[in-house]
Amino acid sequence: MKKKNKKVNAAILIIGNEILSGRTQDKNIAFISNWLNNQCGISVHEVRVIPDLQRIIIKNILELSRKFNYVFTTGGIGPTHDDITAESISKAFGVKYEFHKEAFKILENYYGKSRFNDGRKKMAKMPRGSKLIYNPSSAAPGFMIKNVLSLPGVPSILNSMIENCKSYLIQGLKVFSKTINLYTVESNISKQLGLLQKKYKKEIDIGSYPFFRLGKIGVSIVSRSTSKTKLQSVYKEISRLAKKKKIKILNI
Amino acid sequence: MKKKNKKVNAAILIIGNEILSGRTQDKNIAFISNWLNNQCGISVHEVRVIPDLQRIIIKNILELSRKFNYVFTTGGIGPTHDDITAESISKAFGVKYEFHKEAFKILENYYGKSRFNDGRKKMAKMPRGSKLIYNPSSAAPGFMIKNVLSLPGVPSILNSMIENCKSYLIQGLKVFSKTINLYTVESNISKQLGLLQKKYKKEIDIGSYPFFRLGKIGVSIVSRSTSKTKLQSVYKEISRLAKKKKIKILNI
Repeated sequence: MKKKNKKVNAAILIIGNEILSGRTQDKNIAFISNWLNNQCGISVHEVRVIPDLQRIIIKNILELSRKFNYVFTTGGIGPTHDDITAESISKAFGVKYEFHKEAFKILENYYGKSRFNDGRKKMAKMPRGSKLIYNPSSAAPGFMIKNVLSLPGVPSILNSMIENCKSYLIQGLKVFSKTINLYTVESNISKQLGLLQKKYKKEIDIGSYPFFRLGKIGVSIVSRSTSKTKLQSVYKEISRLAKKKKIKILNI
Repeated sequence: MKKKNKKVNAAILIIGNEILSGRTQDKNIAFISNWLNNQCGISVHEVRVIPDLQRIIIKNILELSRKFNYVFTTGGIGPTHDDITAESISKAFGVKYEFHKEAFKILENYYGKSRFNDGRKKMAKMPRGSKLIYNPSSAAPGFMIKNVLSLPGVPSILNSMIENCKSYLIQGLKVFSKTINLYTVESNISKQLGLLQKKYKKEIDIGSYPFFRLGKIGVSIVSRSTSKTKLQSVYKEISRLAKKKKIKILNI
């Protein structure tokens, strides 16, 4: 994995009617974002969830791949008629949708010649020029073409494959975060937090999130920055503010 | 709630760095989608997750509100500096960002005059002309302006408010779904499912989703349509296919 001394970003494109309809609770957004952040220093700047429709997949692939350093897609690379991600990405980039020789061999070995039917063969079809993302749990590989990485939608399989994306990515500056949990309500500290955010401008991104724990209301203040030193300064300032206002800090 | 004899759609715009960074697992997408589907006959056609940045919120509000019948936003309507949804939507639509008289009164009553500080007052500021979405759990109302409905990000509060959106929405044709769970793998039935989808074209949307239960692999086949009769026909055809292929049907 190469390193780059600046910020690198990504978008996630969730392809699947089952997420849009609410039938399935998405788990891939948080997983991919966390992994990119913590393992690669890559920040996710946008997520979209779209239906299994070729026209819409093409439009979104083109938009997002132009706008961000990387695009991760999930879903639509299985054997059934509603799995149209690979074909749609081929069309988006104007390249042939064809059997990938290595993927074909991997799947043929996995299933055995006699059980390697048309549905399974479909999983070896990809945009021409794709690099494979190996799949240790169910063989069918994902692929990378240009700056787009396509993974399956089933979380357990996706999770098992994500490490195999690493060698294709350029690592960016890691964004660290530091959280302080206060037993208070947001409006009690909103003014001071606003001033703090102004003081640190773009160097630190301060977020405030209410929580409810054991019947008590509190606020998690999350600061994010590429500088650990600056995070420490903000943390100290918020601690001082809490002390001054007699707000209890929750250690978790 | 008025009724309309055709399809009505919506987009969801999740505003919040905490979802993008992976810190918080989103629960609002599935909840809103299910509610819109089941209670209002409204289908969600796109979801986006974006950061707390004014320029980006404005761009997305304009794009999505032009493209879909309704846009539901979540997050960014609290009292802190990173809550910029109401101000950004005002700018998007070129209307004043100002105190909403009724919202101001609701919050003043709720907190009492002496505890009604600037942070709390901020929650009464909205785009001019907004209609209120009442909040039975923590008073601070959401709002609707044009075809955009803004709700808070905390799931428990959002859930308590959603029914209060209903009177503002036009109900569309309800999309029903019917699921059949088969103990088989996708590639064993992918060909026949593809033919079935072709046969019913746009009247029915057939999706195929692998599942893992009690150590066994299966496929949920979900059909969606505005016609219950057609769903029944597809269900029968898939049952016949299962029988023919000696695939066990899982009753759940």
